[in-house]
Amino acid sequence: MTASPDVLVSDRSTVAAAGEHALIARIRQRLPAPPEWLVVPPGDDAAVVAPVRNAFDVITTDACIEGVHFDRRFVPPDAIGHRALAANLSDLAAMGAEPRYALLSLALPASLPLPDFDAILDGLLSEAVRHHVAIAGGNISSSPGPLVIDVTAVGTVRPRRFMRRDGARPGDVVFVSGAIGAARAGLELRRMAADDSGTDSASLSLRYLRPEARVRLGLQLARRQAATACIDLSDGLADGLRQLAGASGAGFAIDAGALPIDPAARQWFERQGQDPVAAAVAGGDDYELLFTVSPKRLGRLRGVERLVRGLPLTRIGTVTKERGVALRRGTHVEDLPAGHEHFAE
Amino acid sequence: MTASPDVLVSDRSTVAAAGEHALIARIRQRLPAPPEWLVVPPGDDAAVVAPVRNAFDVITTDACIEGVHFDRRFVPPDAIGHRALAANLSDLAAMGAEPRYALLSLALPASLPLPDFDAILDGLLSEAVRHHVAIAGGNISSSPGPLVIDVTAVGTVRPRRFMRRDGARPGDVVFVSGAIGAARAGLELRRMAADDSGTDSASLSLRYLRPEARVRLGLQLARRQAATACIDLSDGLADGLRQLAGASGAGFAIDAGALPIDPAARQWFERQGQDPVAAAVAGGDDYELLFTVSPKRLGRLRGVERLVRGLPLTRIGTVTKERGVALRRGTHVEDLPAGHEHFAE
Repeated sequence: MTASPDVLVSDRSTVAAAGEHALIARIRQRLPAPPEWLVVPPGDDAAVVAPVRNAFDVITTDACIEGVHFDRRFVPPDAIGHRALAANLSDLAAMGAEPRYALLSLALPASLPLPDFDAILDGLLSEAVRHHVAIAGGNISSSPGPLVIDVTAVGTVRPRRFMRRDGARPGDVVFVSGAIGAARAGLELRRMAADDSGTDSASLSLRYLRPEARVRLGLQLARRQAATACIDLSDGLADGLRQLAGASGAGFAIDAGALPIDPAARQWFERQGQDPVAAAVAGGDDYELLFTVSPKRLGRLRGVERLVRGLPLTRIGTVTKERGVALRRGTHVEDLPAGHEHFAE
Repeated sequence: MTASPDVLVSDRSTVAAAGEHALIARIRQRLPAPPEWLVVPPGDDAAVVAPVRNAFDVITTDACIEGVHFDRRFVPPDAIGHRALAANLSDLAAMGAEPRYALLSLALPASLPLPDFDAILDGLLSEAVRHHVAIAGGNISSSPGPLVIDVTAVGTVRPRRFMRRDGARPGDVVFVSGAIGAARAGLELRRMAADDSGTDSASLSLRYLRPEARVRLGLQLARRQAATACIDLSDGLADGLRQLAGASGAGFAIDAGALPIDPAARQWFERQGQDPVAAAVAGGDDYELLFTVSPKRLGRLRGVERLVRGLPLTRIGTVTKERGVALRRGTHVEDLPAGHEHFAE
């Protein structure tokens, strides 16, 4: 296969100088051979996909918008691509789905340098390869404003082997995976380094720039029917708890002392004069899973834990009959601080 | 069901004043009861969809971006919503798919008036109801720039009963549905009326503001295996012919005199001093179907014609061995003018 002349533009060029068709060619050059079940791969009006037998489709869409979800001054382009796909894979993980394919809708400012375009793709596609996600299609437009990456991700689940938000019942035990607060601390670090200069902490930065969707954990929780409800922490623990509580018609009693706050993040928040608990609980972008387990099924969780070895699952509280989310800090109890909401300042 | 207090904001308000959760509530209030096969409807991390037996999924994503695909000064909000869905349904139609569900990703400027938000939804959702399309999920963000509506549409086809772009063979006859040029003329009309004031022509405006995706035609062409290749004319006839030619490794000989140029559009182009053929062929947004038929199967097309009664199918040329697209105008032949490409000015 020879490259079309369109593709051979200078790497100093912008996406506008390359043009839509050349950009599409650059994407297609980077894609591995399509799997057999992708009956009509990218390049037609739509993709045609052969189904998985005895499975339901799970589908989600999420946008990454410059100036809202990322800042190009301190988020490198490959991280922008990585995060755009990871956010969607995290939603699939929260349902217990196995990711299968994704579609990309890109709105690009004319001035976007072509190497940045390539790096965004490289970040996104290497994350896709890692999770065996085929790129089934997409579309490219110019944007008169910010860079917008809209991803639609599709996965599969077995019937009755998926998790919802509405299954938490009083008495269930609440767990969160991994550590919280690191992505927020990483974002704060990078933002300050962009504005003046300053210290950096590689691990916190990485947690913000290259979040790991908990795909394997979600799959195992769902397959073993270990969890009664699950949500991902894209908008932070406070928001996740509120969403679960609202959907399930229940509440939560959370033990602040049990929260798995990332140690480096805790240090960072303390140095900045912030309350580490409040900061970690309100901070988004963690992409951990928050889930509830019936006391009778705690044994199943041990089997899950063995399969996601290295990823801690921390018990942080219980589901209550009383609505609302109560955070117990030592001897006193407070309402949980609010999570992230778009348009809220 | 009682409305949550969040929803009871004043209609003079903006989307920012309402907030993300209230906007989501406004969308969900407008949705009809989800079909049974939508096992997990909007409101969870992702939608869960039960498959259609013995069918393939067909999936496409397309963005409508303010300042690129529409201008809020002369495209009313309900038309913005209508067009965003219709563009995606048109891609499904070109594959011969039956539309089933859609996901919406909305990036909204903070200042967008809440009644405009509602009207965008009304336009989109009434088009969804008309085509029996369920809204399976979506997501809302703030936008620091233009209004962006990203739609992902999913449909189904029977195995071996779908159309691609790459099946056109020399000797095949080329057809286009409906009339071309009207959407471009309608856009020009509206743009001029916005800048000063002036005449308007309701039918041309409507063709731009409320395009009809040729879903029924696409379905019938595919089910009867009448067409060898098909594409929709979202980016104009010239672009469609070039895409089909490139994918099929063939060319086209098109007869300018046979082109079904909308009569009102022809008048408009002539009054503006434009060449009607060049304008109609280059103009996008027509959302008609362009397809090729093997001479042996022309009989099948008559059956399709009966089922899409009222929608003309016009023979405009033939597929040639020679690459390229030749437009015959009377006695001389010219290369087809270019179609729309993003970033091209």
